Amino acid sequence: MKKFTSVQDVPDLPDWLALARKVKAQPFDFQKYGKNKTLGLVFLNPSLRTRLSTQKAAQNLGMQVMVMNMQQDGWAIEMEDGTVMDGGTQEHIREAAGVLSQYCDIIGLRTFPGLKNREEDYAEKVLTKFIQNATVPVLSLESATRHPLQSFADLLTIEEFKGKPRPKVVLTWAPHPRALPQAVPNSFVEWMKNAEVDLSITHPEGWELAPEFGEGVPVHHNQDAALEGADFVYVKNWSAYQDYGRTGQELRSWMITPEKMQLTNQAKLMHCLPVRRNVVVADAVLDSPQSIVLQQASNRTYTAQTVLLKMLGYAG
Amino acid sequence: MKKFTSVQDVPDLPDWLALARKVKAQPFDFQKYGKNKTLGLVFLNPSLRTRLSTQKAAQNLGMQVMVMNMQQDGWAIEMEDGTVMDGGTQEHIREAAGVLSQYCDIIGLRTFPGLKNREEDYAEKVLTKFIQNATVPVLSLESATRHPLQSFADLLTIEEFKGKPRPKVVLTWAPHPRALPQAVPNSFVEWMKNAEVDLSITHPEGWELAPEFGEGVPVHHNQDAALEGADFVYVKNWSAYQDYGRTGQELRSWMITPEKMQLTNQAKLMHCLPVRRNVVVADAVLDSPQSIVLQQASNRTYTAQTVLLKMLGYAG
Amino acid sequence: MKKFTSVQDVPDLPDWLALARKVKAQPFDFQKYGKNKTLGLVFLNPSLRTRLSTQKAAQNLGMQVMVMNMQQDGWAIEMEDGTVMDGGTQEHIREAAGVLSQYCDIIGLRTFPGLKNREEDYAEKVLTKFIQNATVPVLSLESATRHPLQSFADLLTIEEFKGKPRPKVVLTWAPHPRALPQAVPNSFVEWMKNAEVDLSITHPEGWELAPEFGEGVPVHHNQDAALEGADFVYVKNWSAYQDYGRTGQELRSWMITPEKMQLTNQAKLMHCLPVRRNVVVADAVLDSPQSIVLQQASNRTYTAQTVLLKMLGYAG
Repeated sequence: MKKFTSVQDVPDLPDWLALARKVKAQPFDFQKYGKNKTLGLVFLNPSLRTRLSTQKAAQNLGMQVMVMNMQQDGWAIEMEDGTVMDGGTQEHIREAAGVLSQYCDIIGLRTFPGLKNREEDYAEKVLTKFIQNATVPVLSLESATRHPLQSFADLLTIEEFKGKPRPKVVLTWAPHPRALPQAVPNSFVEWMKNAEVDLSITHPEGWELAPEFGEGVPVHHNQDAALEGADFVYVKNWSAYQDYGRTGQELRSWMITPEKMQLTNQAKLMHCLPVRRNVVVADAVLDSPQSIVLQQASNRTYTAQTVLLKMLGYAG
Repeated sequence: MKKFTSVQDVPDLPDWLALARKVKAQPFDFQKYGKNKTLGLVFLNPSLRTRLSTQKAAQNLGMQVMVMNMQQDGWAIEMEDGTVMDGGTQEHIREAAGVLSQYCDIIGLRTFPGLKNREEDYAEKVLTKFIQNATVPVLSLESATRHPLQSFADLLTIEEFKGKPRPKVVLTWAPHPRALPQAVPNSFVEWMKNAEVDLSITHPEGWELAPEFGEGVPVHHNQDAALEGADFVYVKNWSAYQDYGRTGQELRSWMITPEKMQLTNQAKLMHCLPVRRNVVVADAVLDSPQSIVLQQASNRTYTAQTVLLKMLGYAG
Repeated sequence: MKKFTSVQDVPDLPDWLALARKVKAQPFDFQKYGKNKTLGLVFLNPSLRTRLSTQKAAQNLGMQVMVMNMQQDGWAIEMEDGTVMDGGTQEHIREAAGVLSQYCDIIGLRTFPGLKNREEDYAEKVLTKFIQNATVPVLSLESATRHPLQSFADLLTIEEFKGKPRPKVVLTWAPHPRALPQAVPNSFVEWMKNAEVDLSITHPEGWELAPEFGEGVPVHHNQDAALEGADFVYVKNWSAYQDYGRTGQELRSWMITPEKMQLTNQAKLMHCLPVRRNVVVADAVLDSPQSIVLQQASNRTYTAQTVLLKMLGYAG
């Protein structure tokens, strides 16, 4: 397995889900696969829960972990080929990926969108070039347009909490004061399309997902109507794709409240965290038993562990 | 054991001291307790020796350690309940503590006083709220008003070096150019009250400890008189509690010198480090055999290991 | 073995090279030597590949690693004896080295030259004082004037790739936009003098190495003539020793190009990385099979592991 960057890299999703449940039940039973193996985690922007859950996942497997925070280490990487590097960049991504491959058996890479230039962000240049030049498997720790480790954990959580074979899952936009990436909703939709769920999306007009992600999924601009009968409400802010990077923070009525949860089929509330309380979701919802955000966070460890195990060649 | 934040959390101090000696004699003999367990260390302000000694302690026990430097990761935490989080804070302490509890078996937390608002500092809000919202045991790595891991190491050191059943221990204030917390002296006094020592304090007028810590301990404003016959001199600067945060750096005569050590009963000199040479203590004292500051630093490992071992359920 | 700061600290270089080959063949076969041992890595300036390769080396040996980035931790160390420390420095190097020795079995230290004051840089004060005050072995992770771990890896790489008993090795200066230390070329020359190679240096007039390093090694100011018949071309920029810190970035004709490689005996190209493409070396050379820069980077792990193994007392 050369890379894990989206659900397309998963050859057999039901098999992976089954392994994730097995790993969660006995997290320390697979240490012979990780023994004497090293995971390198490269962060081009800061991360907390992705770092911790992936580090924990690797340690559960008996792997060693080396963390690189590139901002703090002041490591400026040249992405363009053929450049005369007499400016601010110190190392070309060819050598960067090549050298890290000498010290790591698997490399996790965290990149991010600038949210200024849509074409550039959606080209996923950094991730793609890194993979091209690495000689070991590369794991996305969230890229400019996808967050597959989060989505895999989301799917496991839905599988654990669903009360019927094909639950109704509603992805709803919510307001936020800052421009956030589209990676989490893009990726969530992509994984849900491969799962046994009835998926729909609700967002204000103008916050449509990129066509390649949104296509084929019913969209409602009336949040109340969309929430009716939902078994899972997945709430998340994202900035606009069309008017690229637009926040919509003034649309306060899109916050998830107890009243809105009343419209659902006693839905479970999901969010990838961190969440701004009383902006994205009201306190009373987050503090209710309907919230499963911590269970979702917990599953990050076991799904990351499943991916690492597959990358280490586990075939059982 | 849900928390370790002060000597009040220690059910049986002599038993803990005995375990600390056992751990120091055979630090690697307890690895079955730490195997597959993870310690998370959360620093809201920088730390060096607390981080290293606690990390070493955990590793001696076979634990995995994950370090989070919140300042560097730019993680701004909301402490107030009910806030509409549309400002600078990104995550509420409810989720912060809740999520970290998913990835760690024990969490160590380092907080600090602002030294501007006394009531706020002494309320220990961050530590208290974190413990309320964590679902795993929490270990104080120094809080706004106490440094229990330091005090436990101090006590072990006194036990090792004392030449009589009830040594005379003098805590003395010394000058320092910056406003330092009261956590170390507060905590030292609290632990000494539970130990077999004859404790007194000497400081300039105006540098009284908070009443709840200082009460019952003899105070001298004449340092020379206080030092007479001392078996241990514990020197430390702290800023004032009354005129909150006042430094007193002009009181240069309070520095510990060879002449002052002559007044003692060949006392051992203790300091938690780092120490400003020739401001807090003169070179000639720190470089003499009377100084046991490095032995004190070394004991940080073994007392932290003892606390972790107890938190892991060791009952032997 | 108290210290590893230069080739002078290696009692028997052929024996060390033999061990490095053995370690590379079976990197995990020596874990009984590192078990329950802790390596502390102290960085006074940022480092990436030295940190990763040394960390990997230690983990291969079963050691624990604790990393300290002093810039980020804001730890200002006093170097002068007798100072009244009422200014910006918080801890004296006596305590700094003394305390770290309590928590680590071996300490790696990275220091750097200011490139302003030559006498100060070449005095290696920080490294020397640290070693004086440490009570455990100290490993240089590059100092102001030497980079012995790099040179040991360079030598192993030459041994692996040489096609004759005594290959011709040419160290060539190349341009760079910033003032770089002389540590890598100084150290390379020092190690090569102890190896079975025919060494020469080529650089523009004014970029002579410090006499104690350069003496006895033929120098050419005509790069083309120097490269003739070379089996290894070791390219590296360094700032001037005479006109201390001068860059020479305008001397673009010194870049290594395919045309220049044509003058050699199908030489292998070496560089310690990071390398500025099309300034120091042309793309076409770095991307050709003649480049062995990644193999060089890989060897950093095994030579660091060899040094650590010797420091742990391995005598086999």
